[in-house]
This record gives sequence, C-alpha cells and structure tokens, in this order.
Amino acid sequence: MAQQAIRILGIDPGLRRTGWGVIETRGSVLSFVAAGSVTSDASRSLAERLVELHTGLCAVLDGQSPHEAAVEQTFVNRDATATLKLGQARGIALLVPAARGLSVAEYAPNLVKKTVVGSGHGDKKQIRMMVSVLLPRASVDSDDAADALAIAITHAHHRMSRVLAVAAG
Amino acid sequence: MAQQAIRILGIDPGLRRTGWGVIETRGSVLSFVAAGSVTSDASRSLAERLVELHTGLCAVLDGQSPHEAAVEQTFVNRDATATLKLGQARGIALLVPAARGLSVAEYAPNLVKKTVVGSGHGDKKQIRMMVSVLLPRASVDSDDAADALAIAITHAHHRMSRVLAVAAG
Repeated sequence: MAQQAIRILGIDPGLRRTGWGVIETRGSVLSFVAAGSVTSDASRSLAERLVELHTGLCAVLDGQSPHEAAVEQTFVNRDATATLKLGQARGIALLVPAARGLSVAEYAPNLVKKTVVGSGHGDKKQIRMMVSVLLPRASVDSDDAADALAIAITHAHHRMSRVLAVAAG
Repeated sequence: MAQQAIRILGIDPGLRRTGWGVIETRGSVLSFVAAGSVTSDASRSLAERLVELHTGLCAVLDGQSPHEAAVEQTFVNRDATATLKLGQARGIALLVPAARGLSVAEYAPNLVKKTVVGSGHGDKKQIRMMVSVLLPRASVDSDDAADALAIAITHAHHRMSRVLAVAAG
C-alpha cells in the first residue's frame, strides 16, 4: 500500500529569531524539505517585531504548505521578563499554522531531546549533530533551525505512535 | 480651527477574555465609541484559542477602524505559567493593530490607574467608576472592557501631551 507523505512544520519560537524546519514523513521514512529562521529587528517596537515574525511565518506556510505543525513548549523557569517576551513570540508561532486550520502539537524541550538525542539532557550541539544524522540532506543555517527540525522529527515519531495505536486498537 | 477626531483602540489582553474599548478624542474632548470583549473557549487547544482572539480582534478593527492603538503592559511578577499564557494572548493583541499599520503604544498598569483614577493603586471598581464619569455614554459589559477604555483614555492623555509639547517646541 502506498503511504501518503505528511509534511510537518516544526517551529522553535523566539522574539529575536524563530527557527522553522519542514520534513516529510512517509511511513517511518523521514526526509528533509527545508529549514531556516525568521528574525525580527531589535531596534523596532515590540508590536512591529511581532508583525515581522508573523509575516515571515506566513511566507513559510505559503512556500512549504505543511499538513501539520509542532511548536516547542516554553521553559517557564527563567526570569519573568524573558518568559513574557518568549510568550509573545510563541503566541505568533501557534497562531499562524492554527489560523490556516493545521493541527498544532506542542512538545516539551526534554521530550524533543529524548526523541532526537536519546536523553533528556542533550545540548544544542548534540541536537544539531543528530538532526544531520537523521536528515542527511538537511541544510541548517542556525541552532534554531536545527531545533525546529528536531521538533518536527519529534512530532513525526509521536504522531506515528498514535497512528499505529489506532490501527492496532 | 476644526480639530481632527482621532479614534483610539485600547486593549486589555487576556487568554480567557481580552477587553477592548474605542474612544474618540477631539482636542481635549473624549467620547465613547464602543467597547466589549473577545473570549476564547477554554476547552479548545491553546493554538485554537489564539486564533479565536485573533479573529475577534480583527473583527473589532474592521468594525471600528481606529487610527491608533494602546495595549496594557503586563505584570510579570506573578507565576511564570500565568505570565507565559498572558504573553501569548498579548502577542496577538499587539500583532493585530500593528499588522494594519497602526502605531501601538504600551502603558504600565499603574500609569493607567494614575491617569484615570489619580493614584497608582486604584482597584477595578474605581477604574470602572471613573471610566463611567469620564465617558458618561459608555456601555461596558465587563471589567476588562472598562480597563480597555481606561487604556484608551491614558493614550488620549499622553498623546495629547506629546502633541502639545511638539506644538510648543
């Protein structure tokens, strides 16, 4: 039976730089599609920076036409001002795919690390290395883009488990 | 000289309920235009709730055609999970007017209280009472809508100070 390719968009939100990565999953085979990052100009107002992120992510959705999206859950154990900034950027990251009717899954950072690196304590370098092993053709311009691909890989893995569970049920 | 009426949208962001209020300022005369609130369904996913707020605020912009916007700055001194939730809703509140090219001012809660009530420590009841004194024709369905009108009044006051300073300079 020919399996349908599902195109997944992973997003690693940040006000200064939001990483994104698109992969395709066909059965258990993953392949790299595209990755990059959307940045905002720190000299502009917060509202204008959120518009920059929104415009950039809309262009990614237009260009890549993903079927599903996944966004990293945010650490809330750092200082409140950083949490608020990240929250505002994260609001945009969740809004853009959901506004187009895509389901948006959320994964905790340590689940992403565990799925990709095999342990909940991998650092950025290990994530980037494992992303290039799992997606040999990936061209990644930043740690944020690598993180976004890791989130997409995590979603591919967990949605597959759900699909198999439903088929077996 | 006939003074141009400026229509100001105030927004009090919240994930469950975002209050909004529109006033018109002509010279130093303020008048009530409209107020209300946009709510999100707590049983839906976070991403879907942000879409509900986005859709609701877009409808307010379409219906009211404000010239300028003002959004309340967020307390960051409560728990991190609440700060993150509020940050995500606030991201949408800043995005919607800025995406249409409106300038978006931000005011701290105690400045709003000081402008409207005369002290930085007024409670919600005092704000609602003073809003109804300053805008006798206001019809307000909630504390959040009253807060949003208070933010719009604060912006009217502070933009006026700036306009006068420029004229005198």
